[in-house]
Amino acid sequence: MTDLPSAQRAPVQDFYPTRLRSAPDALWQPRKEAVVKGRELNGPLTRAQLDEFERKGFLFIPNLIRGEELKELRQEMKALMEHDNFRERDFSVTEPESQEIRSLFAVHFLSRRLGELAKDERFAGAARQIIGAEPYVHQSRINYKPGFAGKGFNWHSDFETWHAEDGMPRMHAVSASLILTDNHEFNGPLMLIPGSHEKFVPCLGETPANNHKRSLKAQQVGVPGPQALTELVNEYGIEAPKGKAGGLLLFDCNVLHASNANLSPDPRSNVFFVYNRPDNRCQTPFAAPHRRPGFLVHPPGAQWTPK
Amino acid sequence: MTDLPSAQRAPVQDFYPTRLRSAPDALWQPRKEAVVKGRELNGPLTRAQLDEFERKGFLFIPNLIRGEELKELRQEMKALMEHDNFRERDFSVTEPESQEIRSLFAVHFLSRRLGELAKDERFAGAARQIIGAEPYVHQSRINYKPGFAGKGFNWHSDFETWHAEDGMPRMHAVSASLILTDNHEFNGPLMLIPGSHEKFVPCLGETPANNHKRSLKAQQVGVPGPQALTELVNEYGIEAPKGKAGGLLLFDCNVLHASNANLSPDPRSNVFFVYNRPDNRCQTPFAAPHRRPGFLVHPPGAQWTPK
Repeated sequence: MTDLPSAQRAPVQDFYPTRLRSAPDALWQPRKEAVVKGRELNGPLTRAQLDEFERKGFLFIPNLIRGEELKELRQEMKALMEHDNFRERDFSVTEPESQEIRSLFAVHFLSRRLGELAKDERFAGAARQIIGAEPYVHQSRINYKPGFAGKGFNWHSDFETWHAEDGMPRMHAVSASLILTDNHEFNGPLMLIPGSHEKFVPCLGETPANNHKRSLKAQQVGVPGPQALTELVNEYGIEAPKGKAGGLLLFDCNVLHASNANLSPDPRSNVFFVYNRPDNRCQTPFAAPHRRPGFLVHPPGAQWTPK
Repeated sequence: MTDLPSAQRAPVQDFYPTRLRSAPDALWQPRKEAVVKGRELNGPLTRAQLDEFERKGFLFIPNLIRGEELKELRQEMKALMEHDNFRERDFSVTEPESQEIRSLFAVHFLSRRLGELAKDERFAGAARQIIGAEPYVHQSRINYKPGFAGKGFNWHSDFETWHAEDGMPRMHAVSASLILTDNHEFNGPLMLIPGSHEKFVPCLGETPANNHKRSLKAQQVGVPGPQALTELVNEYGIEAPKGKAGGLLLFDCNVLHASNANLSPDPRSNVFFVYNRPDNRCQTPFAAPHRRPGFLVHPPGAQWTPK
């Protein structure tokens, strides 16, 4: 797809006000967009899988990648995490209390292998079926939660952040997280509230300048209040998909998720692509004083290299 | 049992040096005491239960307390946690980042009902069978982990702390934790390393003065190193007993345990008695500059009232 400069000039309505100064009348508002929008398009997901994604806001596909391919991807991750040129750069984020790398961003530009993976039909095709258009990569990263040292993160909707801080207008994005280590009960697996993707929970508190420098380590702004979370968990429960390395978790941009600290010796890592629709490209932030840096927000057709 | 002043005067050998200035030659040393020492004594535990405790260092008894008795105990806990006279006292410890009560100590003195419970044969009788003598209560507390706000704690052996900071000579103590709320995967249940009670892992770092003011909120001294933890988890694994309110967890004083944050709306609470042998009463701390306050360390036959 080509860039659409006219879309940038058009005034963009804020369908999801957030980072509010005072508590809103309602704990949440209903989602305005369909969840699965490309059932008629080509792609790897079955009708049953699309139904499950629509209902829960996520879909876990165990053992999608195995054997030699998995081994190569794990080696690639290791090489990227240990790359001397990537240390102490803005796109590599360390743990709040140590110098261990927690997230490495823009990995589909940093690595040819991961650039190819981002275009792989098993990932991009699934995204096409879900968002209903040819996807582009809005963000990519490797998350790494070291044994014993990896902290968790609070409940949040990614869309809430991308809308407030990056100017993503609508809920037309999906994340694909390929787990590269076994995920079990004790190494801080992703927890999700199934069904929460149907509700947008506005968050209290204005966004500080350069919030990402803090929020990528430990998010404090853009976190739903306890009352909304309590009602949603009481209604929908919590699920934590677990499984062997090579499983793929697809999850909607607005599903609430969190994770706990890694209290086991086993690291937990994944490679993560966010697919967005070109007609939903990011504009001016809806609730933040400045744009975030380029390693967090790639426009359609972007090229990016570390500065 | 009566106090034994002669035991106080005898020089006490330090069988378990810890809080070391430099790394020891070995990651751990073997335990010197038997685990189950009163098989011939009266008590509620079966031979199979004692075998399981001996092997794993803990035993979970689901649904020990039910119905009206459980309801009354939950009401008693609530009343204690909400008691105005207990706020901002040294024996009530708040969360590291909020004013919510995390632990309330000396509860068998604060509450007649819990004082009776501490003597209840289902608890004290089990302790007798394990430690091999008529037990006294070395410490008691209610732990409360509020929904969303409750933090976890790092891997540690209670005995390591009691030995270093309270002067408990030997491994002759057992904890009885009655869970008063349902324990599930997402509200930060206790995790244990089964079998780790057979090894004493000395910890690095000298104990600061008044360490308990910090350690009861978030423990940083008295935490085993990552190499010992990795080897122990790789050998023994991790277990997290879960179940309905009313279950009882008995665990050895030296079994390594930890817990994660509570990411669910459901609070997690328990009432907790530590039973010790009168001939193992606490002496001078083995590795700390001062004794800890009385609400943490009760001698045999003690009476205690809040000051």
